[in-house]
Amino acid sequence: MRISELAERAGLSVATVKYYLREGLLMPGLSRSATQSDYDDAHLARLRLIRALAEVGGLSLASVRDVLTAIGSDPQDVATAVGTAHEALGAAHRSAGGAEPVQARAALAELGWTVWPDSAAVRQLDAALTAAASVGLPTTPQRLRVYADAAMQVATSDIDTVPRDSADATAAYVVLGTVLYEPILLALRRLAQQQVYSSRAQPDGRQQG
Amino acid sequence: MRISELAERAGLSVATVKYYLREGLLMPGLSRSATQSDYDDAHLARLRLIRALAEVGGLSLASVRDVLTAIGSDPQDVATAVGTAHEALGAAHRSAGGAEPVQARAALAELGWTVWPDSAAVRQLDAALTAAASVGLPTTPQRLRVYADAAMQVATSDIDTVPRDSADATAAYVVLGTVLYEPILLALRRLAQQQVYSSRAQPDGRQQG
Repeated sequence: MRISELAERAGLSVATVKYYLREGLLMPGLSRSATQSDYDDAHLARLRLIRALAEVGGLSLASVRDVLTAIGSDPQDVATAVGTAHEALGAAHRSAGGAEPVQARAALAELGWTVWPDSAAVRQLDAALTAAASVGLPTTPQRLRVYADAAMQVATSDIDTVPRDSADATAAYVVLGTVLYEPILLALRRLAQQQVYSSRAQPDGRQQG
Repeated sequence: MRISELAERAGLSVATVKYYLREGLLMPGLSRSATQSDYDDAHLARLRLIRALAEVGGLSLASVRDVLTAIGSDPQDVATAVGTAHEALGAAHRSAGGAEPVQARAALAELGWTVWPDSAAVRQLDAALTAAASVGLPTTPQRLRVYADAAMQVATSDIDTVPRDSADATAAYVVLGTVLYEPILLALRRLAQQQVYSSRAQPDGRQQG
C-alpha cells in the first residue's frame, strides 16, 4: 500500500508517518520508484504499536525507541522482551535510582517470587509501598497477598493468551498488553468497589437503573 | 500541637501548611492567642490525605478540594464518598464527555455489574477498551472475566479492611486506598508476568540470583 493508505489505516497523518520514518521508528518501505514506496501489514502493525505506546502508554519517543529496539533485537525471546518493555515503561522509576528498594524486596521475598531484583517494576513497587506507608497506610501482608494473587491470575492469563504465530507479533503483543490492559484493570477495580457497595446495600438483589 | 510540629509530622513546610489553611483545604486550629493556634491528630490526618492525593495521586488542588468536600459533606455515607472520590480522581475521563461509553456498558452488562452508569470509572473503562480495540487488540470476554474476577477480589478485600472506628477516617481511608494501592497492583502485575516467565523457564524450581 502507499503511504497515504498506510497513514489512514493507522489513524495518523502522512506527516507523522514520514516523521517516524525519518526518526527510524518505522522501517522503510519497499522502493517502487524515486518517489514511491510500498508498505505492508508489518508497517501498519508497527505504527499501531508506536501509537499505542505514545498515546495510551504516555511514553516519550525515546522510550518508544527503547521498547522497539528491545523487540527488534531478539524477538524470539519473549521473556527478555517483557523485561525490556517493563524497563522502558518504568523509566521514571528506574531513573529515580539511588536508594535500594528494600520494602519491595521484602514483599517479594514474602511472596516467594524470584523476579529480576533490579527491574524497574521492583522500584515501582517500592515507591508505591513507601508512599502508602508514609501516609499511615502500610500495606499489610494480607493485602499484599490478595493483590499478588489477583495480579498473578491476570498475568497468567496475559501470558497464556499471547499469540504464538510469529515472534515479532508475540513481542509486540506482550508490550501492548502491558500498556493497554493496565487502565482496564484499574477501572475495573474502581467499578468492583462500586459493585460491592451496591450489592451490599441491596440485599434483595434488585437491579439498579 | 503547634503549626511547626504539625508541619514536621506531616512532612511539609510550615509555608505549605499555611497555604492549605488559607485555601481552606485544612480546617483552622483552635485559637490559643492572637498568634498561636493548636492543632490535633485530625489536622495531621487531613494533611497526610492532601499530600497523598496531590503527590501520589497527581491530583490538582481543585480536585483535592472536590474529594475533601465529598468526604466532609456526609462522611457517614461511605458508598457516596467512594463514588465522589472516583469522580474526582477520574476527572480527566469525565470531562472528555461527549460520546456514550458503549463498550464499557456492554462489558458491565456481560459481567452483571450494576454500577453507576455515568460514573467516571465507566468512562475510564470505555476509553481503555476503545484504545485496546483501536490497535487491533480487542478485549475478549475471557480476558474481561479474568480481569474482573481479579478486580473483584481486590475490591472486596479493600472494602473488608476499611476501618470502622470513625466515619471521617473511613472515608479518608477509602479515598487514600484508591489512590495509593493502584500503583501497587500495577507493579505486582508486571512482576507476576516476570515471575510466570521465570518459573516456566526453570521447571526445576531453582532460585535466581
